Amino acid sequence: MLVVKKFGGTSVGNKERIFNVAKRCIEEYQQGNDVVVVLSAMGKSTDELIAKAKDINPNPPKRELDMLVSVGEQISVSLMAMAMAQLGVPAVSLNAFQVAMHTTSDYTNARLRSIDVERIRAELDSRKIVLITGFQGVDKFDNVTTLGRGGSDTTAVALAAVLKADKCEIYTDVDGVYTADPRIVHDAQKLGEITYDEMLELASLGAGVLHNRSVEMAKKYGVQLVVRSSLNTNEGTIVKENAKMEKMLVSGVACDKNIALIAVCGLQDQPGVAFKLFNHLAHHNINVDVILQSVGHDGTKDISFTVSTDNLDEALSVMEQHRQTSLICEKIDVDRNVSKVSVVGAGMVSNAGVAAKMFEALYDAGINIQMISTSEIKISVLIDEQYTEQAMNAIHDMFINAAK
Amino acid sequence: MLVVKKFGGTSVGNKERIFNVAKRCIEEYQQGNDVVVVLSAMGKSTDELIAKAKDINPNPPKRELDMLVSVGEQISVSLMAMAMAQLGVPAVSLNAFQVAMHTTSDYTNARLRSIDVERIRAELDSRKIVLITGFQGVDKFDNVTTLGRGGSDTTAVALAAVLKADKCEIYTDVDGVYTADPRIVHDAQKLGEITYDEMLELASLGAGVLHNRSVEMAKKYGVQLVVRSSLNTNEGTIVKENAKMEKMLVSGVACDKNIALIAVCGLQDQPGVAFKLFNHLAHHNINVDVILQSVGHDGTKDISFTVSTDNLDEALSVMEQHRQTSLICEKIDVDRNVSKVSVVGAGMVSNAGVAAKMFEALYDAGINIQMISTSEIKISVLIDEQYTEQAMNAIHDMFINAAK
Repeated sequence: MLVVKKFGGTSVGNKERIFNVAKRCIEEYQQGNDVVVVLSAMGKSTDELIAKAKDINPNPPKRELDMLVSVGEQISVSLMAMAMAQLGVPAVSLNAFQVAMHTTSDYTNARLRSIDVERIRAELDSRKIVLITGFQGVDKFDNVTTLGRGGSDTTAVALAAVLKADKCEIYTDVDGVYTADPRIVHDAQKLGEITYDEMLELASLGAGVLHNRSVEMAKKYGVQLVVRSSLNTNEGTIVKENAKMEKMLVSGVACDKNIALIAVCGLQDQPGVAFKLFNHLAHHNINVDVILQSVGHDGTKDISFTVSTDNLDEALSVMEQHRQTSLICEKIDVDRNVSKVSVVGAGMVSNAGVAAKMFEALYDAGINIQMISTSEIKISVLIDEQYTEQAMNAIHDMFINAAK
Repeated sequence: MLVVKKFGGTSVGNKERIFNVAKRCIEEYQQGNDVVVVLSAMGKSTDELIAKAKDINPNPPKRELDMLVSVGEQISVSLMAMAMAQLGVPAVSLNAFQVAMHTTSDYTNARLRSIDVERIRAELDSRKIVLITGFQGVDKFDNVTTLGRGGSDTTAVALAAVLKADKCEIYTDVDGVYTADPRIVHDAQKLGEITYDEMLELASLGAGVLHNRSVEMAKKYGVQLVVRSSLNTNEGTIVKENAKMEKMLVSGVACDKNIALIAVCGLQDQPGVAFKLFNHLAHHNINVDVILQSVGHDGTKDISFTVSTDNLDEALSVMEQHRQTSLICEKIDVDRNVSKVSVVGAGMVSNAGVAAKMFEALYDAGINIQMISTSEIKISVLIDEQYTEQAMNAIHDMFINAAK
């Protein structure tokens, strides 16, 4: 059996944890399995490197930023190989160059294109544990790239896909996927299984367990994921195409505080205005989420939308560049004190009334809804950030505790 | 003009120093020159990484150690590119993979084989300052290698050779090459010029200014080196084939405390014994220096020799492996409290009596000579380590101050 295991930065944050991960991987290896391990940078080391960069240049060239932060995973994999050697098991660390982890040239947010498995196969055939740097790649000109936050998950899933692995285990600091963040909703429950689509909505909604691109890729290539804890041996949550039907209508409640609301007021009301606005942003790889368009006064219209706070400054600067040409408007307002609360569930498709129940829960809790966005399997609302925890508990009570 | 500049770890040890180096390189660039910069890891970061490794595995696999420590230079070059960008000058950082810095597979002590200059030329042609990681390479299987201590000098000289650079400047924390270490001999004088051969002897004798492999390579490819300070703009020391004849017979006095004396006593006195001993060590890339063979009792002989203390443990373990077979002897003694003091000078070739004067100086100072080794242009003596400073001053007085 070939198993890909991915461990995040917390799991390899110090010597003791490195040895814990080493032992865990060695157990799998000693059962006769081929083991490929994907590691993130240790603890907060990526953040520390970025801080070092910004101290030198507040707006560092992205190419150089990727060159810099990619060292974090290289440290993790080489130290892990040493730990395994110390435990008597042969291991080899490989970076993005060494496995030809080819990506696009979109620095800090590159997308995987191809991986050369020859070296990995050869090392596995010689019965080594293969340790691969997560998060990073190289473009066709040999420049170092990174895949963006959570990119190590994507690396692991991509490797599982090209190696046709039997399992792809994503180890994290929680036991699996919960119906809500247990730090916010104390009676949140662990899910045994969940579909790719539900996980995708939860990931993109800020549930934070899995990176959404990794789930997309897992769905595309049919890689069965297991999300489990690196701290205990509890069974985790299996993410796959046809998850067992849970009794619950809703499989999870998620929130995302890392968003800001941009309101563009007084736009000329003519065709193509919205297209141009979002096209400018798309050209800069800025994802726009919940969008609301409303009629303004005197033949104008207002467009409000949310972006990740990480992209806020860039979004505003892009818009400012076009204010004299294709984006003539009265004003652009920003509200950082918003959060998005969502319910997700494959069961929604065939069940009307979920939205009504959600709004009822919020109404009962006295929380005002600013914007609404829905998909086949999720409903999101934008609310004042200070009511996030209260909203999540109210919704969780309504759907999940009530369903028990 | 194409200039290669190499800065050591101290020169890029913090933000302020990084900007100093950046400005210095930019001055050269703004004169219209092409500038290639080779950097070492910041400050003590390589030592810190090695300590981290040894904490996990006291005897880490060398391949993994190279994979680990190579991140140090990658951090330096990417931060430097950011500093230059901050100062408004385009720069690009390149690691060993990106310039195909091919080496042998001798981890921690690899030798350069070839460099692909295509990328470097292209970046220079687009008027960028090119920043290249020193010290590291990749072998033909794409494994990361390192060139051993001082390897960044070798990287710089190799680049100057393949790029046919007009100058190769080695920046360090001293003003140039001195007649002796100024920390030990207070009236040591800076040399304006020195030949490759003299520099080679001084480098291999522990003068510590330049790595000997870099000088060998400079001599082989006729690369003119300049050793100068990164802290001031004083003229440094030029290292070239035909240096101006100095008035002095001796151009430098050097010491090396980083050695240990191994005495193998009671070896069988038959042909091939010495060959086998040194052959075993050579197979492990352990350099042996001063060698003394003497007659023991009862038809045996004793062989004493020095090794770098870095190699001592490995040398002893290699010898121990062969004690039952090809290295039958009575005992192996080790003396760590020795140092080697040497005088070097191209002028010696045509001047007899240098050895006699050196021994006189030591005799006058009451210092006992344990072993002697000579070459065309140097004389080394092995003495008790505690008398190192005293011996150096005595010899420096005899040759250099007296010649004034």
